Amino acid sequence: MPAAGRYNQVMSLVVVGSVAYDGVETPRGRVERMLGGAGTFISVSASYFTQVCLVGVVGEDFAEEDRAFLAGRGIDLEGLQTAPGKTFYWSCIYSEDMNERTTLRTELNVFANFRPELPARYRSCPYIVLGNIQPALQRRVRAQVPQARLVAGDTMNYWIETGRDELLAAIAEWDALLVNDGEARLLSGERNLRRAARRLEEAGPRIVVVKRGEFGAVLFAGDYVFAAPGYLLEEVWDPTGAGDCFLGGFAGYLAERGLDPRSPELDRKELARAVVYGSVLGSFCCERFGVDRFRTLTRAEIDERFLEFKRLTEF
Amino acid sequence: MPAAGRYNQVMSLVVVGSVAYDGVETPRGRVERMLGGAGTFISVSASYFTQVCLVGVVGEDFAEEDRAFLAGRGIDLEGLQTAPGKTFYWSCIYSEDMNERTTLRTELNVFANFRPELPARYRSCPYIVLGNIQPALQRRVRAQVPQARLVAGDTMNYWIETGRDELLAAIAEWDALLVNDGEARLLSGERNLRRAARRLEEAGPRIVVVKRGEFGAVLFAGDYVFAAPGYLLEEVWDPTGAGDCFLGGFAGYLAERGLDPRSPELDRKELARAVVYGSVLGSFCCERFGVDRFRTLTRAEIDERFLEFKRLTEF
Repeated sequence: MPAAGRYNQVMSLVVVGSVAYDGVETPRGRVERMLGGAGTFISVSASYFTQVCLVGVVGEDFAEEDRAFLAGRGIDLEGLQTAPGKTFYWSCIYSEDMNERTTLRTELNVFANFRPELPARYRSCPYIVLGNIQPALQRRVRAQVPQARLVAGDTMNYWIETGRDELLAAIAEWDALLVNDGEARLLSGERNLRRAARRLEEAGPRIVVVKRGEFGAVLFAGDYVFAAPGYLLEEVWDPTGAGDCFLGGFAGYLAERGLDPRSPELDRKELARAVVYGSVLGSFCCERFGVDRFRTLTRAEIDERFLEFKRLTEF
Repeated sequence: MPAAGRYNQVMSLVVVGSVAYDGVETPRGRVERMLGGAGTFISVSASYFTQVCLVGVVGEDFAEEDRAFLAGRGIDLEGLQTAPGKTFYWSCIYSEDMNERTTLRTELNVFANFRPELPARYRSCPYIVLGNIQPALQRRVRAQVPQARLVAGDTMNYWIETGRDELLAAIAEWDALLVNDGEARLLSGERNLRRAARRLEEAGPRIVVVKRGEFGAVLFAGDYVFAAPGYLLEEVWDPTGAGDCFLGGFAGYLAERGLDPRSPELDRKELARAVVYGSVLGSFCCERFGVDRFRTLTRAEIDERFLEFKRLTEF
């Protein structure tokens, strides 16, 4: 359990996203029901860097031990509403190489009527992370924190295909867009990654991060480009949430350092370090099912892997 | 044209591999017949670093201008035999994203009876690169240079599937094996890259480099691991030969520096730099059809892109 007082001095970060129960089957095993959801993975990862405030909704079936786990990570849960009904449930099965997955069930439950409302004291938080939810809801949250210093968001193919205009309107209000390579290509209409990123920057965000799963990530910010290779795990148990953990580590590091991505004085290598911390959190996520790796993970282990990335890429 | 005298002081490198005419169709265009072949791409790339001696065979139809291009790169052609008949011809078509290709025609022609015989003065060369040819022929060459300091080789799925035992016997005599990720998995029987590399190291080579195309490359050498992300090209015209150019740049750099990969005193970051030079040469290769980019490419441009890789990956 992190010392809650540790974050008194650091900037805090609001995370909006799903809190869910997941059923996952990978070649390494199967879990019927465990804590998951983008909001959960982002918050838990970011909690290693800064004070996190989670905005989401769960049902009456949400287990006390799962709430205790989040609170134990020092996450502020005032923004986590409990609504009548059941918690969002989602299940999937992965391919043999775990590079593809098939959704088996999606039961939105209480998430279907989720209207994110930020507690008053969250509205002055300088760092906001918008997990993958309906773009209209992302805009609703964005409007509640007009003075935020960093708004970082994620999306998915579904919104690109069904809500493109609303999504583009949402993204136009963000500082950082984090997507995977397929999404970057789909949203930009460009096959080439460099050109896709340029097109996405033109849509608004000054920072575009393209996540490439086991192949690493690339950050684009104007004429600055940073590429991180993937961390080479010996065993992948469950890749679910790795992209969300990347986002949590990325934004968490920027918040911890109190960085302002809009400042012309920003040391752009700080953005690169944020990408590496994102990669580190994503890699740990895959080492166990669901959030299990975070039950024991320490900040010291995170920093050690950050240094391992340095050794892995220095020449 | 490089100054031939420049290499008087540097170690020389023997390349064995196919010299061919290629027909290539990519989404950027189509060329019916142009200079190609693994031996060509490796030699031309390595020629930016060291004195290269090319061992191969061409037919009577081999054009004087193609011979002049190779000679113009300072490549020693005493080992390039001319045999009665036609030069090896191969043609292919690439998928829209250029990550897959389909072979259309393979006409071995004079290559069918290729029996590599090294000119006497090549046999004391300290650096040997074995392009992708029949493993028995790779062994034949290896036996002709018993005192070589570095033997680096490549292979392909075809030999893994049809000549596995012979291939393993060949690899056992190498210092460095360079393969793509699919080949690494197929040859090792391991899905996980880190474990696949360990299995391949157990087969003999102290250095295993896994090439991942646009996603970069990873080098394994005992407990040392180095990962390079892919260089982000704005336009890919033709990926043919990029893996061979990687091999040429990798081995060429080691030869230029006079490095001994078997020495316990070896600075392992030199291996990392060799991987980056390999990536640089591979990236240039894709910028035009066939070897066309190398008609104008200078060493200064290569070194500039090496530095760009540094900026791209530093954090």
